[in-house]
Amino acid sequence: MTTGGPQRDEEQRPLRRAPQLAVLLEGGDRKGLLHDMTAAILRHSGDIVSVEIVERGARSAVYWELDGIDDPEGLERAFLDIDVVDSLRRLPTMFQVYGKRIIVVGAGAQVGQVALGAIGEADRHNIRGEKISVDTIPIVGEEDLANAVRAVARLPRAVAVVLAGSLMGGEVTEAVEEVKGRGILVVSLNMAGSVPKHADLVVTDPVQAGVMTVMAVASTASFDIARVRGHHF
Amino acid sequence: MTTGGPQRDEEQRPLRRAPQLAVLLEGGDRKGLLHDMTAAILRHSGDIVSVEIVERGARSAVYWELDGIDDPEGLERAFLDIDVVDSLRRLPTMFQVYGKRIIVVGAGAQVGQVALGAIGEADRHNIRGEKISVDTIPIVGEEDLANAVRAVARLPRAVAVVLAGSLMGGEVTEAVEEVKGRGILVVSLNMAGSVPKHADLVVTDPVQAGVMTVMAVASTASFDIARVRGHHF
Repeated sequence: MTTGGPQRDEEQRPLRRAPQLAVLLEGGDRKGLLHDMTAAILRHSGDIVSVEIVERGARSAVYWELDGIDDPEGLERAFLDIDVVDSLRRLPTMFQVYGKRIIVVGAGAQVGQVALGAIGEADRHNIRGEKISVDTIPIVGEEDLANAVRAVARLPRAVAVVLAGSLMGGEVTEAVEEVKGRGILVVSLNMAGSVPKHADLVVTDPVQAGVMTVMAVASTASFDIARVRGHHF
Repeated sequence: MTTGGPQRDEEQRPLRRAPQLAVLLEGGDRKGLLHDMTAAILRHSGDIVSVEIVERGARSAVYWELDGIDDPEGLERAFLDIDVVDSLRRLPTMFQVYGKRIIVVGAGAQVGQVALGAIGEADRHNIRGEKISVDTIPIVGEEDLANAVRAVARLPRAVAVVLAGSLMGGEVTEAVEEVKGRGILVVSLNMAGSVPKHADLVVTDPVQAGVMTVMAVASTASFDIARVRGHHF
């Protein structure tokens, strides 16, 4: 019932499920604070999944997502033992809050229609307990587009990218191959240029492209990308 | 010409501009790798802005965004001196690729219409050199909504949140106050519940809500949120 896309992802990438622990550490700020925190994580044999510096300067707020910790309470005490750390809060992970991400890039008019389809379909799955986000950037130009596609592989929780435009090729096609190699599902509108030839799935109607992408990544959907890979709709 | 929202942000949060350096380090993986990397960053007096673990296990791929480094080439050599690190690539930062983020949360039908307005308006600004992303999650239920609003403060590059629904209050309103305190601009549709009373801006038409939010955060727009804060449209 699950799809080829996400299976490929789960094997290759560490970020497609909720990590063990998410904590926000607040307090004062100083040089070396992050390094002291990574020392504590290492002593508790934790794997760092991601770090965000939420605040810096007069005060610090550092958000960690971590995996593989033997003794989470021990690590929390070690964090609080750092001189400038005042408080610690356990939080739901970004995966629990926003879930898997579909990224839509291209020309505004078409990105909007893909988003409309994807958001409508994600709503139906999220109501049944799934968590799927639909993230977009309207952007033009070969270089900016290629950068936006390539960076999808470095976005936390991203599982699919939809190329919404009328002409894409060259460096954008190279970027498509690169992110496919990182386990990202690539959906393209039917358009001019070489991108559709390299996509996992080509869909003519932008609303349907959004709907199908959500179906392909949702674990609540019975849509098997492996059965339709390379097809044009 | 710029707006109250972003000005408030830039003072309080470190993540609203492009950091100095973005690098992807690839190679083997082992315990303590991240800690060795933070040691190198500390020796070069770098400030960590964010870290993403892109790959882990047989191979490692770690994406760093850093600030305040005296000697970027020296730090790059120090990274490559770590035993398992094979290669290093400088990349455009996420801010350069995707820019500021507007987050739209709520019921699917309304989230879709807000997204349509925001994407259309972002397209017009992005063509003129701005970078604005429109990110969405269709989600229902007081707790899930409150979590989605609260987590906006921990999302990299997020500057505004739009609440798109028909009834929101209670814990969601508490979350609204919390993210306002972190410098996030809060826009609400005109709806039942206490959320509109706490929003920076209330807009009845969802398409216009999306358009106005983009205008409020774009540096290419001449829309001053300070002049309309607390208004209902």
